Amino acid sequence: MKRKNAVYAQSGGVTSVINATACGVIQTARKYSKMIGNVYGAKDGIVGILREELIDTGKESEDNIRALKHTPGGAFGSCRFKIGSEDTSDPIARRLFDVFEAHNIGHVFYNGGGDSQDTCKKITALSLKFDYPIQCIGIPKTVDNDLAQTDTCPGFGSVAKYVAVSTREAALDVQSMSETSTKVFILEVMGRHAGWIAAAGGLAGKGPGDPPHIILFPEIPFDRELFLRKVDLTVNSLGYCVIVASEGARYENGEFLSDAGTKDAFGHVQLGGVGATLSKLIAEELGYKYHFAIADYLQRSARHIASQTDLDQAFAVGEAAVIAAIEGQSGVMVTIRRITDEPYRWTTRTTSIDKVANQERKVPRSYISKNGFGITARARRYLEPLIQGEAYPPYVEGLPSYVQLACKLVEKRLPKYATP
Amino acid sequence: MKRKNAVYAQSGGVTSVINATACGVIQTARKYSKMIGNVYGAKDGIVGILREELIDTGKESEDNIRALKHTPGGAFGSCRFKIGSEDTSDPIARRLFDVFEAHNIGHVFYNGGGDSQDTCKKITALSLKFDYPIQCIGIPKTVDNDLAQTDTCPGFGSVAKYVAVSTREAALDVQSMSETSTKVFILEVMGRHAGWIAAAGGLAGKGPGDPPHIILFPEIPFDRELFLRKVDLTVNSLGYCVIVASEGARYENGEFLSDAGTKDAFGHVQLGGVGATLSKLIAEELGYKYHFAIADYLQRSARHIASQTDLDQAFAVGEAAVIAAIEGQSGVMVTIRRITDEPYRWTTRTTSIDKVANQERKVPRSYISKNGFGITARARRYLEPLIQGEAYPPYVEGLPSYVQLACKLVEKRLPKYATP
Repeated sequence: MKRKNAVYAQSGGVTSVINATACGVIQTARKYSKMIGNVYGAKDGIVGILREELIDTGKESEDNIRALKHTPGGAFGSCRFKIGSEDTSDPIARRLFDVFEAHNIGHVFYNGGGDSQDTCKKITALSLKFDYPIQCIGIPKTVDNDLAQTDTCPGFGSVAKYVAVSTREAALDVQSMSETSTKVFILEVMGRHAGWIAAAGGLAGKGPGDPPHIILFPEIPFDRELFLRKVDLTVNSLGYCVIVASEGARYENGEFLSDAGTKDAFGHVQLGGVGATLSKLIAEELGYKYHFAIADYLQRSARHIASQTDLDQAFAVGEAAVIAAIEGQSGVMVTIRRITDEPYRWTTRTTSIDKVANQERKVPRSYISKNGFGITARARRYLEPLIQGEAYPPYVEGLPSYVQLACKLVEKRLPKYATP
Repeated sequence: MKRKNAVYAQSGGVTSVINATACGVIQTARKYSKMIGNVYGAKDGIVGILREELIDTGKESEDNIRALKHTPGGAFGSCRFKIGSEDTSDPIARRLFDVFEAHNIGHVFYNGGGDSQDTCKKITALSLKFDYPIQCIGIPKTVDNDLAQTDTCPGFGSVAKYVAVSTREAALDVQSMSETSTKVFILEVMGRHAGWIAAAGGLAGKGPGDPPHIILFPEIPFDRELFLRKVDLTVNSLGYCVIVASEGARYENGEFLSDAGTKDAFGHVQLGGVGATLSKLIAEELGYKYHFAIADYLQRSARHIASQTDLDQAFAVGEAAVIAAIEGQSGVMVTIRRITDEPYRWTTRTTSIDKVANQERKVPRSYISKNGFGITARARRYLEPLIQGEAYPPYVEGLPSYVQLACKLVEKRLPKYATP
């Protein structure tokens, strides 16, 4: 086997453990250096390949590569960019393969969500058409947990843990203030199309009456009256009400709550998410004092409270991708397969990229309680293993010690390319 | 010394370590049980005293009391309620002392912020007028860190750590996405009157160019043009911009940014904080893609990332309050005195309640950089010791194990009282 170089690219929204996957790829490739040459990190994802901005990971120390395992964000930069065409006459397609050829690249490790797997699929198709061999291996990553064919997506377990922990903590705060002050607290979480993150909030409580009292899923159409009745009932019986709301919560007609009725005097759409919309509704209709938090990027970068299970899986999918390449696989995505729930045992596999690209896995109805506001025992059985273990990063002077790589670029060999 | 009972009350917004103070009070009182009788927890703060709802902490196990040390929120409930008058004819004042007398209470430990210390002051004055001896000891607590006479306020160090950690983490996320996506990230933090929490965000970075790039303090009037210029310059030079904004950021004329220009088509004031206002400004004037997070209650309940220093101090002020009572002090608040910066050494003291009540300690100008957007070395010297050490709570099945007390009420001895 003639040794080829590899490129590793991060794609889409980053997570608190995506760099652990990078660590898995790089450390494993170094271990098999007879079969795989240099590993280049694509600067800012696939955009960096097009710009021929390739980071030489060989110039990074062992220590720095190891430190990726506990560093959130995307160490090489990520991007939102889709390859539009599988046509060999497409200038973007040609440029990609020009760069691959110029740097003797034979392996592409593409670390992303559903859209990214579509890019993997296109690169695989182009490889055949150009008759230039590229082994393209998709590596799953998304806090949204909405990839098909895999038990879970690295990145999700840590957000799930963050949201469950934060819900439990904030609930204690609201509960203690509720007699004379705030009665309703809303935590707005990510997940525009699937309610996995919101569902994880449900892990904060176990018994009846435990917070969160209401979860809003994108999968369940928002019923204004039912919601208000449930809030009122909860406040009347328990004294307070904790709500975890997915940013993707929507009405029956598909309209997002976050878009609803928020035009200002000039007709401009007002900024505001589902937390603001629900708060307004509660204030106007029920008159309760409310507070809301928007976790936003904090949730997906919270490496300080990452799940050990998630971290292990993030590393393992990187490792498995390199092994798959060595085995000669291509056009596949690494998956995580659950062997047993209790104890939680899992392994990695690969699946055809066709089965993954542009698919979306939503929260099944059987995971959501009958009234649509909570999670079932089945959901718990699925979710609980994913938040196990506290993978604390090292601290220096009270703050987590995160690495910034040197990110030295490989010398360019091609003419300049118009920035996409 | 004839043994009297004590009441311990939590007041105002709770923190992630206020229960550690409760633990300090209860454990120390148990140690000196020859001098101090039962410790009653006031249910929902002083409102519980008026309602004669006193929680018998003697009925709580040693383990439960110990677990208070790692449990956020207010274990006995808190409230926002001010005693209006020092007049002995005032029905609230009379009721308070009726309850004290009915339960043989001689010590009041009042755990709160500036308003609460005013209540302490009034109880002390009333004690003299009624000629009923009550030793009222104030115990500092406020995430806002704005109490006078004390080096810091328990609760603040942990929020400071949370905000610094979260800023560092989210900044890595934004940085990796900035080439093709989000360029500006805003973290909205608490501190309506003083910018201590916002200042703590500054600890996330050390060198030039490190995030956060802009901090907005209530102490520095918001200059729209200067702000926009700084955002633009930062994005142009670094590719992204991270902002930590105090909810109390305001214009020269005192108007809060969070109140500005947010009326809807019907003239209703729109919900929204400083994060939403700044985002709108940036989108409209600079056109950058932005994201914002609102930490809200998450920041002050985040026991999972509490500062060990803060936790130690929270416990110590509880302990010191009981010792002060035994020594015969009254009308005082426990304070924390800094002995040296490096190594950070501190001790507890007491100060007259008159020097504390209704005072507000703002961030000094010398702690804020010349341009008004950052913190100085002096601020770092003050802040850094407060976030040292990670006081992790115990975890069970992936989640922090927090205690809920039994909260058994003492039998009432007085006629029912109209709820305040």
